[in-house]
Parts: sequence; structure tokens; C-alpha cells
Amino acid sequence: MFDQNMAKKAAESLGRVRERKPLVHNITNYVVMNYTANALLACGASPVMAHAAEEVEEMVSLAGALVLNIGTLSPPWIEAMLKAGKRANALHVPVILDPVGAGATSLRTDSAKRLIEGLSIQVIRGNASEVLSLAGEKSGSRTKGVDSVHTVDQVTDAAVTLAEELRITLAITGAVDLITDGERICRVKNGHGMMSRVTGTGCTATVIIGAFLAVDPDPLEAATTGLSYFGLAGEKAAAKSSGPGSFQIALLDALYEMKEEELRAGAKIQVFGASGIRQKG
Amino acid sequence: MFDQNMAKKAAESLGRVRERKPLVHNITNYVVMNYTANALLACGASPVMAHAAEEVEEMVSLAGALVLNIGTLSPPWIEAMLKAGKRANALHVPVILDPVGAGATSLRTDSAKRLIEGLSIQVIRGNASEVLSLAGEKSGSRTKGVDSVHTVDQVTDAAVTLAEELRITLAITGAVDLITDGERICRVKNGHGMMSRVTGTGCTATVIIGAFLAVDPDPLEAATTGLSYFGLAGEKAAAKSSGPGSFQIALLDALYEMKEEELRAGAKIQVFGASGIRQKG
Amino acid sequence: MFDQNMAKKAAESLGRVRERKPLVHNITNYVVMNYTANALLACGASPVMAHAAEEVEEMVSLAGALVLNIGTLSPPWIEAMLKAGKRANALHVPVILDPVGAGATSLRTDSAKRLIEGLSIQVIRGNASEVLSLAGEKSGSRTKGVDSVHTVDQVTDAAVTLAEELRITLAITGAVDLITDGERICRVKNGHGMMSRVTGTGCTATVIIGAFLAVDPDPLEAATTGLSYFGLAGEKAAAKSSGPGSFQIALLDALYEMKEEELRAGAKIQVFGASGIRQKG
Repeated sequence: MFDQNMAKKAAESLGRVRERKPLVHNITNYVVMNYTANALLACGASPVMAHAAEEVEEMVSLAGALVLNIGTLSPPWIEAMLKAGKRANALHVPVILDPVGAGATSLRTDSAKRLIEGLSIQVIRGNASEVLSLAGEKSGSRTKGVDSVHTVDQVTDAAVTLAEELRITLAITGAVDLITDGERICRVKNGHGMMSRVTGTGCTATVIIGAFLAVDPDPLEAATTGLSYFGLAGEKAAAKSSGPGSFQIALLDALYEMKEEELRAGAKIQVFGASGIRQKG
Repeated sequence: MFDQNMAKKAAESLGRVRERKPLVHNITNYVVMNYTANALLACGASPVMAHAAEEVEEMVSLAGALVLNIGTLSPPWIEAMLKAGKRANALHVPVILDPVGAGATSLRTDSAKRLIEGLSIQVIRGNASEVLSLAGEKSGSRTKGVDSVHTVDQVTDAAVTLAEELRITLAITGAVDLITDGERICRVKNGHGMMSRVTGTGCTATVIIGAFLAVDPDPLEAATTGLSYFGLAGEKAAAKSSGPGSFQIALLDALYEMKEEELRAGAKIQVFGASGIRQKG
Repeated sequence: MFDQNMAKKAAESLGRVRERKPLVHNITNYVVMNYTANALLACGASPVMAHAAEEVEEMVSLAGALVLNIGTLSPPWIEAMLKAGKRANALHVPVILDPVGAGATSLRTDSAKRLIEGLSIQVIRGNASEVLSLAGEKSGSRTKGVDSVHTVDQVTDAAVTLAEELRITLAITGAVDLITDGERICRVKNGHGMMSRVTGTGCTATVIIGAFLAVDPDPLEAATTGLSYFGLAGEKAAAKSSGPGSFQIALLDALYEMKEEELRAGAKIQVFGASGIRQKG
């Protein structure tokens, strides 16, 4: 039922992150900085948070991946993101965007679009509302409403269309995660409902994908395998915790403790061709 | 001994927060952003942190309450607070102010006063020193010194006078919490000493009141019932933890796990008329 | 084998911190603000985070120590650090610098050097790369490379030379901590490998030294005893945790629970004269 080849790749990428300890440069929001830094350390990567325009180009040149996250956004941070992103592009450092709150305010939607237009981005990770708000006014992929009304079946067509348009891998997380580059479609069925009761789990999914991107050049694969690892850690953490506080802590422990063979056995990844699934959708 | 009607209202408000999941917009300090977001999620509300002048008006229009917190203050944040607060006032979104550190520096005292003068604020939550530093120079309610010297009896008169002057509900937290709108006075005897050993518990009390304000239009009631819920969660967390680290985590779990009937049974709220208690004070 | 006099002083300083509850003023990075505030509270001190140029002079005048930390640096923060530091110097409030990421970008290295030139600083706490990047171009104490390649033996000579040059106590933390003021050398053998798997443990070591500096006027002694306390808490936390999430929480509990006699018995401090150890190095 689940794809064994992708499960194997998930385990291999986790091993590579632990072995190579890639530096992941984050320009991200104040709320999650501590937690995402700890999540990166727990999975074996090395985090750095740096946002000053004066240093982002130098910092990103040391990095294996660049994470841009627009939560708690203000205009100078967007300029720093553009500067860091351009240097990352020049150096072939992969870039992942988390469009936190896109669709909720014009500043967020417009800033996310500026980043997409100004940079070459490899992966966008968000919930359905955030990601689909990035479609152009005329695009058939635009949707409205809050993400809770979207099932993965409902958003697949729009996501594939948008991924084709943007030529970016989209990772839409929810009860089931959807990952598509416009040609291929993956679903990840790992995860636990408690993940939505802790702030910054979406942002944490993004940095884990960042770490996987640093060791796997295929964005669809890195996003899919990273989300499977993160979701499986969530399942393990839920089994050991009694509420969102203890869950948040157990999740860091689970990321750290996860054995590669455990991930290979527990990854719940499905792989589809875009044409096949769109007929079903 | 304790007010059964208020205990019932506490339980009802908690139920409403969980049912309606109000969006609480926070313009707050860097230290507590993660923790207060998690506390809001744990109690059933939906947090958003956004401070850019470019988006606060749009964001607050989606919110059920606005929390303004002046910890780690800098001048652009005050401008954003004024902008967000004015829009909140126009839309009848309730506003709660946490004057962190008022009385310690002129920037903090003056900024808190600017917010009070420029906006219609429903509740101010702080410790005794912070709240009473907001009294005018000529006011009889002004006090000096650190809050540890203040008992609830010592500050009641000054608090009632200041609440009358400002026409704002004041929630002064300490070993016993005092809540007054200048006419009515409530005391909340829930809580635990460990709460003072974790950073941001005051700020967290403020956001919980924010969530209760989003579902209860009476500021005195929302502040009183919110503090009772928070304090009772603190009691439960203390019983399950061995120090401030584990307490901080257990507190999030306790906010999440609290049953409505448990709050109704455990709320320790006293209600007085202002004239009655002032003669005693 | 270990110095009993320093162990006694460690226990005494911990007792004094708990008794006097010194206010520690932090101008620090976004990532660690919550955690270092909680660590200060756990050890008995009183934290305040304030960075606005408009208030740092007033705030530091209330403080027993000033912590300057250049993680998530931007230029306005450096100006505030200089302003706060000058006032601290005038008032004889001790200043400790954490040069996070010095050596990684020019902004960080140059900013750390500006602070060292513009202020009288009592202690600098960092890893070997960060601290040794502060040596001048012509200095024999300059090194290159990442800190993991440095053992305490390899960096001792360079550190003693740099401490003499700067006339500042240097605290270089790693598997074994090295503390020197250019004349005396101490080593602290407390600590646990898990401390490197949690973000901000270095920054936390810095604030603990800050709290000890507030009650002990000898910078070498304050840095050495503070690191011993912090390291021993790390050992205790590691015994009670199963990964970096639970370790981070257990570390706060351990700081809080540590008995003075426990620290006196468990401190692993060695004291050398500079000339003696340099011949060995």
C-alpha cells in the first residue's frame, strides 16, 4: 500500500542529515525560532538564525539550505530574504518558503508572491489556504476559505495546476499531506492530530524539509521524505504525552531518537502520477 | 465561601472558547510569543502574532480580541499597537493591555499611558506595581515600590480609584488576584507559587483573559473567570511537576485537559461590592 | 584532584544569587530569550529583556549585571548595547559578552570587536572559534576553523595571550571549559554532551555567569563557579531525560533544585597558574 522506495529514501536522507550535519540558515518568525532551531538540532542538522541585511549573504554562503518564513513579518525582513535568496540561488543552495498567513493579510500574500517572483524557490510548504492563496487572480487554482474545509482530494487539482504554473514543488500539510511538482504527486499519511495543538509545527515541518533538501537534490523527494519523518515522530510523541505541552517536548525527543530502520518501516508515503490522481480528484 | 455563579460562568466561558476558537491577535514581546501562542492553543483559542504597521489593521479585523503587551518594547511597536487598537475599537473587538515593566522605565510607563489615552481598552492585567504606576501624578491611587510588598488588601483602594478614573477593568495578579471595574471587586484565590518561577506567566494570564473576552462581553467577568481557569491549571500543573521546567510544560497540558465541570468545582472566586470591601481595606 | 576552595565559592555564590535575586539585564537574541529568562529564574535571579535605545540606560541602572549577546544581531541592537554598556560601566555594573557567531560573518566579528573596544567588559563567554576570532589580525592568538577541532589543550596558549591583550576574563566552553584572565587558568570538567544538542545552552551558560558576576566581583571566579553550577545541572538533567526535548526541560528543573552542598560536592574545577599550564600546553 505504501511506497517502499520512498520509505527507503526517507531513511537514507535521515542518515545523511545526521552524518553531514548541514547548516540550515533560517530567516524566520519570532514565535518559532527556538523550537525550529531545536528541531533542526534534534534531527542532526545545524541551525543558524540570522536576518540582518548586513550579514545574510555571508551566512547563506555557509549553508546547505535556506528557510524563508514570513510569520511575524515586517518589510526589512522581506528585503533580507530577497538578498539571502539571491545569493542562495547564485550558489545553488536550495531555498524553501513557508508563506505563514498568506491569504490572511495583503502584506503576507504580497510578500510571499514577491519572494516567488524574485527568487528561484525549490519548495513551498504551507497549509492549503496559504499555498493556494499564492495563485494568480486569473488562475484556476485559487481558492478561498480556511484550510479546515479542504480535504486533500479537494485541493489536489488546484495544487497540481499551481505547481505547474510556478514550477515549484508544493507541500500542503494537513491530516494527509500532499506534495506535488506538477507532474508527480505524493501523499504522506504519517502525523497526529495533536500536531495542530502546538504552535509552529507547520514551521517545523518546513525546516525539516530544509534539512532534507540539503542532502537530497530532488525537491519532491526531500519534501515527501522529510514530512514522513516529521509525521512519524509526531505519532511517536503522541503516544508518550498527555497534552500539547508534553507533546511539544516529546516531539523533539522523537526526532532525535528515530532510528533509520524505524522510519523505513513506518513511512506512509503514496506516489501517484499527476494524470492518474487528477482523474480521481 | 466562593461565588457559585461566577464559577458557573467560568466553566461556560471555557466551553465557549473551545467551541468558537476565537482568533486572538497579539502584539507582544519576544520573550513570551511562543509560550502564549501555545497557551492560547491549549485553551482552545487560535493565536496570531503580527506587529507590522502594514498589516495590523487587516489582521485585527479577523480577531475576537486584541492583546497589547509592552515587554521588549520599541517605538515602532507602540505605533502598531495604536493602529491596531483604533481599528479594534472601531470594530468593537475587545482590547486587553499588559503593561509589562511599567514603572521601571519611562519608556514603558509613558507608552502604557499613551495606549490608555489613545484607545478604548477593556482590561489591563499586570502586577500591582505595573498597574498602579499608571495612575496620574496627582492621583491618590499612585504607589511606589516593588509589587512583593503589596498585599491585595493594601492595593484594593488604589485599584478601585484608578479603575474608576480610567473606566477600565483592572486585573492585578499576585498571590491573590484582584479584579475591579471601580464598582465591583472580585478576588481569585486560585494559583500556585511556582507560577512566579516561570517567565511569562503574567503575560499568559493576559492572553487567557483575551480569549475569555472574545466570548464574554463583560470585562470584569472575563478577567475574573479567565484568571480562575489559569490559576486552577497552575495548581494542577504544580502537582505534576518537580521544578519550573516541568511546571511550564505541565501548565500547557493542564490548560488543555481542564474539564468544564472541574473548573466549575475548583474556581475560587469571591465577589464584593466596591463600597463594602473598601471599608474593610 | 578538584579545587575545594573554588567548589566552596561556587556553593556560596549560588546561595547569594538565591538570597539577593539580582536583576540581570539582557540585550540578547530572539532565539534564546525565553529559555535564558527561565534559566535565570530557575537559578534564583531576576531576568529582564530590554533592547530599546530609549530605555536601556534606565533599565541597566536597576541591574546587578548586563548580558550582551550578539545572536540574531542587527545594527540598532549594537547601538543599544553600547549605550547600555557605557551606563553599566559608569555605574560599575559588570558586563558579560556572548559573541555568538563571531568568526562566521564580518557583522558579528566586527560588532563584537566594537563592543570590546568601546566598553569595559568583565567576561567574554563563547566557544573556541568565537572567542579566538576576536584576536587582532596580528595577534598570535588568532585561530581558524570550527570549534570542534579544538581541544582545551590546543586553545589554552591562544586564550591566555588574548586574555592578557584584552585584559578580559575569557570563558571558552566545550567538552572541558577553560577560563583565564591571562594570569590564572581554570578548567571546569562538569557538563554533558547533550548540552550541545539543545539550542542556546551556550547563551544560557553566559547568563548564569552574569548572575554569578552580580554577587562575586572576581570575574574569573564568577565565570568558573557559574560554569561549574551550570555543567553539574546538565549532568543531573541528562540522567533524567531521554532526548534533547526532555533534557532542555530537566535542565531548568536541575538549576532550580540544585542544593548548595550538592554543588560543593559535585563541582569539578581545576585551578592553574598561567605559566605552569602553558608549558604543558
